[in-house]
Amino acid sequence: MTIESVSGEGIDTRHRPVDYGRVFTQAIDRLHAEGRYRVFIDILRNKGMFPNARCFAGHNGPKPITVWCSNDYLAMGQHPKVIAAMEEALHDVGAGSGGTRNIGGNTHYHIDLEAELAELHGKDAALLFTSGYVSNEATLATLAKVLPGCVIFSDELNHASMIAGIRNSGCEKHVFRHNDLQHLEELLAAADPAAPKLIAFESVYSMDGDVAPLHAICDLADKYNALTYLDEVHAVGMYGAHGGGISERDEAADRITIIEGTLGKAFGVMGGYIAADRMIVDVIRSYAPGFIFTTSLSPVLVAGVLASVRHLKASSVERDAQQAAAARLKALFTNAGLPVLPTTTHIVPLMVGDPVKAKKISDILLAEYGVYVQPINYPTVPRGTERLRFTPGPAHDEAMMRELTDALVEIWGRLELRQAA
Amino acid sequence: MTIESVSGEGIDTRHRPVDYGRVFTQAIDRLHAEGRYRVFIDILRNKGMFPNARCFAGHNGPKPITVWCSNDYLAMGQHPKVIAAMEEALHDVGAGSGGTRNIGGNTHYHIDLEAELAELHGKDAALLFTSGYVSNEATLATLAKVLPGCVIFSDELNHASMIAGIRNSGCEKHVFRHNDLQHLEELLAAADPAAPKLIAFESVYSMDGDVAPLHAICDLADKYNALTYLDEVHAVGMYGAHGGGISERDEAADRITIIEGTLGKAFGVMGGYIAADRMIVDVIRSYAPGFIFTTSLSPVLVAGVLASVRHLKASSVERDAQQAAAARLKALFTNAGLPVLPTTTHIVPLMVGDPVKAKKISDILLAEYGVYVQPINYPTVPRGTERLRFTPGPAHDEAMMRELTDALVEIWGRLELRQAA
Repeated sequence: MTIESVSGEGIDTRHRPVDYGRVFTQAIDRLHAEGRYRVFIDILRNKGMFPNARCFAGHNGPKPITVWCSNDYLAMGQHPKVIAAMEEALHDVGAGSGGTRNIGGNTHYHIDLEAELAELHGKDAALLFTSGYVSNEATLATLAKVLPGCVIFSDELNHASMIAGIRNSGCEKHVFRHNDLQHLEELLAAADPAAPKLIAFESVYSMDGDVAPLHAICDLADKYNALTYLDEVHAVGMYGAHGGGISERDEAADRITIIEGTLGKAFGVMGGYIAADRMIVDVIRSYAPGFIFTTSLSPVLVAGVLASVRHLKASSVERDAQQAAAARLKALFTNAGLPVLPTTTHIVPLMVGDPVKAKKISDILLAEYGVYVQPINYPTVPRGTERLRFTPGPAHDEAMMRELTDALVEIWGRLELRQAA
Repeated sequence: MTIESVSGEGIDTRHRPVDYGRVFTQAIDRLHAEGRYRVFIDILRNKGMFPNARCFAGHNGPKPITVWCSNDYLAMGQHPKVIAAMEEALHDVGAGSGGTRNIGGNTHYHIDLEAELAELHGKDAALLFTSGYVSNEATLATLAKVLPGCVIFSDELNHASMIAGIRNSGCEKHVFRHNDLQHLEELLAAADPAAPKLIAFESVYSMDGDVAPLHAICDLADKYNALTYLDEVHAVGMYGAHGGGISERDEAADRITIIEGTLGKAFGVMGGYIAADRMIVDVIRSYAPGFIFTTSLSPVLVAGVLASVRHLKASSVERDAQQAAAARLKALFTNAGLPVLPTTTHIVPLMVGDPVKAKKISDILLAEYGVYVQPINYPTVPRGTERLRFTPGPAHDEAMMRELTDALVEIWGRLELRQAA
């Protein structure tokens, strides 16, 4: 039935029927009341001119904007090699894979990319998923089911997809304070020594831009015989001499049981993956519903990722330029008295602490300055830590950064916002 | 830690450490013992020549094959309009979206496609997901959470992704016998009349090829004040005058609360969606982690789907040719005494009833006849009902069908398999 049809009239029941429309309206009203109802900004990027784009909403025709919040961190989604590879695949094999990996949807591109990703992380094998979200959810939920009695130790700032996988596993779970080794060890020491254990954490935390102490966590994993699961989605392509992530940079990849990454951020396309021992990849491949029962990634996407991964294995130009841009923007913000969160990575968070104000700043930037940066609010970050999150990259130049800083200083004054302490 | 490093030596514990490698090996051994360890066939399709393809595994160089098990049912993944649209988008905006729908990844293509899909199903609104799997899992899990105390009634043959969503919702669940209206009504009548209710079912069941009685189920939904959730992934594009699915063909779309579909089968590309009242779409958009926390579909894919949906709204040539091909193949199989399962749809299942034999037939077809059809075994179908599942389409001609039938008759004789009753 459609929800409008529920009037309560003519329904044969002795009870007052459920008013579905009212329940759904209340759910939406709660978001408006908290100032966190999300309006999607309608944009198109201009290939070859990133971070320039066009914005469609609320204007007469497309309006040019500068994008400051893309996760296409290195602009690889617009790289000529990536575009050429995708065009070639499109003409060679067509649009989609036509099936699951097991039933008609396993192409030679998939096999090549898995080999390339395994090699990137120094692992036996890799496995592609339709997204990073699915790779986390499916792998964690399945691992824990294959290991009866498994206990999972999860960093409190882990991504929603890891939390979903852990919850759906039905395992005993212990959350440790963010990057807190002492707390993690307390929890490990208190657990049954005979139980299988898994420590799940990220390398670069995407909203605060800080980094986990990989070796120290691996030391604890060794001491307590635990497996390790590392989400590197905000690091692959961007850290390490070949883009293998923080685990490559810190020479810790061989100590991590499973490395998870995305193909939709620094690699510029779409999809997710894990890399691990052959046996573990085979188990996930064979048992994870979120892998088995889904159409495989389009070969067009896979071909593009192959080109992107291979390019970033050989070239550090993009990585170096991104780090330089991030350092420069942080310096400009700091010098202007803007409340930038100090980070050791490419992520530049500007703290606002209120969802309504964060949205207001973002609206002014878009309407008056042609700057697009999305407000980040709950549930993506904890309430009270709402922010703007800038992701400068190789294509954001000095002039753009100065314009942005000047705009923010003007808005900060206009709205009487808190400056840096 | 890596699983090889677990030797039991040098680990500081009073207990025998968990031997992770052994547990994982046992999990894989169970699959081999049951004859259902899956080997992915390494193929590349040849654009413009579907169902012709190339097979890479176990040969010296690629070998030409005919694909009989693709879910690119209408060969739209190779349609010139689809390829052209994807190429244009690739050059206009680049490879990936660069973000979630909320943070930088909402493009004008996404908005246009959602409007097109809403219109296809006669609904207010639609919402794109990265896959059909995710659309089912995320929507069902979220709906049930937004409706406290919701009770879900689920057909016993529902797809793994619906089962995952229902399980992850944590709701009270009742499974009704496949397409059994009397059983469904018994369960509805026994439930608390004041509880929110949702009936979740499919239109075309993909493995048996039968169809649900939509109006009769909607009658029960009206009588018991239940919402309805219909998975049309094996019907959209293929049934109804505009490809709106069985709900269009049977003029029932306005009675279904939520219609779910895929972009990776008849539409030939990749992705999934729901279409429903605006308020419901807004709730899922705002609350579903599997929608919120994932990079949006590549605009290249979305552009291809837009072309595909628009073409199949206007053209019935592909639909008619598919139905004719399916009817012809079923007739050839029946006349040859092969145990084809009678279906009223485009799906042609040939029953084997044993995983090892099903795999053996498939292996012979590929090695000796250049025919690719994947064996379907548990958990995709119940144990004892293992089968080969053929999906003839507009591009499978009479000569291919006769060759296939002759090959199967020869193999059936060679392996002394059971004929039709």
